[in-house]
Amino acid sequence: MNRRVILVRRPEGKVTESCFEVTETPRPEIGAGGALLEVRYLGIDPTIRGWLNEGGNYMPGVAIGEVVRSNGVGVVVETDDAKQFPLGAWFMGLTGWQQYWAIAADEFPPVTMIAAESEPMDALNVQGQVGLTAYFGVVDVGQPQAGETFVVSAAASGVGSIAGQIAKLRGARVVGIAGGPAKCAWVVDELGFDACIDYKNEDVTARLRELAPQGIDVFFDNVGGALLDTVLRRIAVNGRIVLCGDISTYDIAEGAVPVYNLKYVMGRRARMQGFNTFDSWDRYGEATEQLGAWAAEGKITGREHVLDGLERAPEALVRLFAGDHLGKLVVKVT
Amino acid sequence: MNRRVILVRRPEGKVTESCFEVTETPRPEIGAGGALLEVRYLGIDPTIRGWLNEGGNYMPGVAIGEVVRSNGVGVVVETDDAKQFPLGAWFMGLTGWQQYWAIAADEFPPVTMIAAESEPMDALNVQGQVGLTAYFGVVDVGQPQAGETFVVSAAASGVGSIAGQIAKLRGARVVGIAGGPAKCAWVVDELGFDACIDYKNEDVTARLRELAPQGIDVFFDNVGGALLDTVLRRIAVNGRIVLCGDISTYDIAEGAVPVYNLKYVMGRRARMQGFNTFDSWDRYGEATEQLGAWAAEGKITGREHVLDGLERAPEALVRLFAGDHLGKLVVKVT
Repeated sequence: MNRRVILVRRPEGKVTESCFEVTETPRPEIGAGGALLEVRYLGIDPTIRGWLNEGGNYMPGVAIGEVVRSNGVGVVVETDDAKQFPLGAWFMGLTGWQQYWAIAADEFPPVTMIAAESEPMDALNVQGQVGLTAYFGVVDVGQPQAGETFVVSAAASGVGSIAGQIAKLRGARVVGIAGGPAKCAWVVDELGFDACIDYKNEDVTARLRELAPQGIDVFFDNVGGALLDTVLRRIAVNGRIVLCGDISTYDIAEGAVPVYNLKYVMGRRARMQGFNTFDSWDRYGEATEQLGAWAAEGKITGREHVLDGLERAPEALVRLFAGDHLGKLVVKVT
Repeated sequence: MNRRVILVRRPEGKVTESCFEVTETPRPEIGAGGALLEVRYLGIDPTIRGWLNEGGNYMPGVAIGEVVRSNGVGVVVETDDAKQFPLGAWFMGLTGWQQYWAIAADEFPPVTMIAAESEPMDALNVQGQVGLTAYFGVVDVGQPQAGETFVVSAAASGVGSIAGQIAKLRGARVVGIAGGPAKCAWVVDELGFDACIDYKNEDVTARLRELAPQGIDVFFDNVGGALLDTVLRRIAVNGRIVLCGDISTYDIAEGAVPVYNLKYVMGRRARMQGFNTFDSWDRYGEATEQLGAWAAEGKITGREHVLDGLERAPEALVRLFAGDHLGKLVVKVT
């Protein structure tokens, strides 16, 4: 059998565990040239919240009664193409919240094989979608230069913590924004950020004035809404705003979260840009290799917060928005 | 003597003629290597409104009691460097609302000499800041490709009308948005736009759905606020939003005009960018030459609405925001 967590009702506002149910169906059959993956870990990414809405986001919404879409990693336990999908090999892909996933021969977005010497969970963090999101967002969109000031919100999150470290490697001064002293201490003391603003206990505007007196060259935004507005007021001439996520708005109805300060984008000749790693999938190899090298050299540190049990995936998603964790939230399936 | 229009009080909300006064001072003295320009025409640009606020915009605000900053063209009537500033030559620059302007030897932004064979008023429209704004905004920022859908707001304005024509020359399908049937008829029948939405009498959302069923590849925005929000919902994947102006917000206090739909910029991997021709002044020559060639070949048409008399500059600025004119508003000084 295949245990799965399905969507039974769409969240209105905050996502709750009552939106989901655990069900069992027969194990999926594999198609020609495909394979069956036994899912071992799930990455609890903020983007899942968008998939629970009828309209979805850059991907369509999950239908009621369907398994919840999610990144995951697992092991090939059955294959119709032992060359592409060797038995026992680890793969990362959009497994969904379930024990078994049938990979199609031409799966898109493509699955990625995880090198035998890697820690499979890394594929859900530094060397997976999380790392790739940080990589393409910093390298291609934000493009921080040596000596520039780089600010990242949700700095202690999976993407935020890696984005800041990549910007550091490029020579930028890196300032995080995070909630609470523990998160701030982690990114400064352990990840090497130059500073971190605790938005729960500090005046963000005043601290940004101190920490970025010449303005903010790159803002890597994972939060959106009011915090984005605050930062826009200090964007530098020719600054870049990486629209990576707007977690502050995910639980709120569309049309409810205003941004007032676009005039600073215009006046400062700044650039605000969305992006998606799917558009760069032909460069996953290059990016994953670079991230792996940085991780191996200890230049990038990932951290996972693991919850045990597939049935805890809904709880993990609720906690993601509560923000009481450091690093990447992961669910261990078995 | 030098008649001048000075700022006597800052507008609160809508700009009114009572914000200005006509005064006389002695003719300015020219500095070493400089020249005296007798101003003949003033370009009434929306950006002037930003200069009336204490904080200014990309340039500082005009001080109370100072002459109103403005583009203008005029003739050299006195010179300390006959090579750089020949007597009788026409120049364009930030003359201000006054009869005489002393050009410094190293004036910045630089003044531009107007070719003897040109119509001087063109330097305030197609071949001046207006044309340059449209040119750099379309060519560098919007980058419409052949077959793409290009939408421009304030389509019957100076910048809007030229931007649409440049996009047409690059092979895009061009849709204007303007207020009233006369403006729409002008841009479609005389300038060759593919279509125009009359936002005063039509449902912009429904018309955009009809006219851009695959989404909007480039939005050249002169208006901001609610219209920007409406267009963002239909931005195409990898679309570009040129933040040229937000005339709908100029008369309204900062922090009062929300934009709700940035999530479409993020989700559609779009790019929203401010720009300023001053940043490209080293390419003014190239751009002006191209604009002049297009104008000479009849490929770009400019239109000016001229008011007679320096003392009518305030009236012209008020009318600019009322929007009851076609093309570029110009004041004839003498």
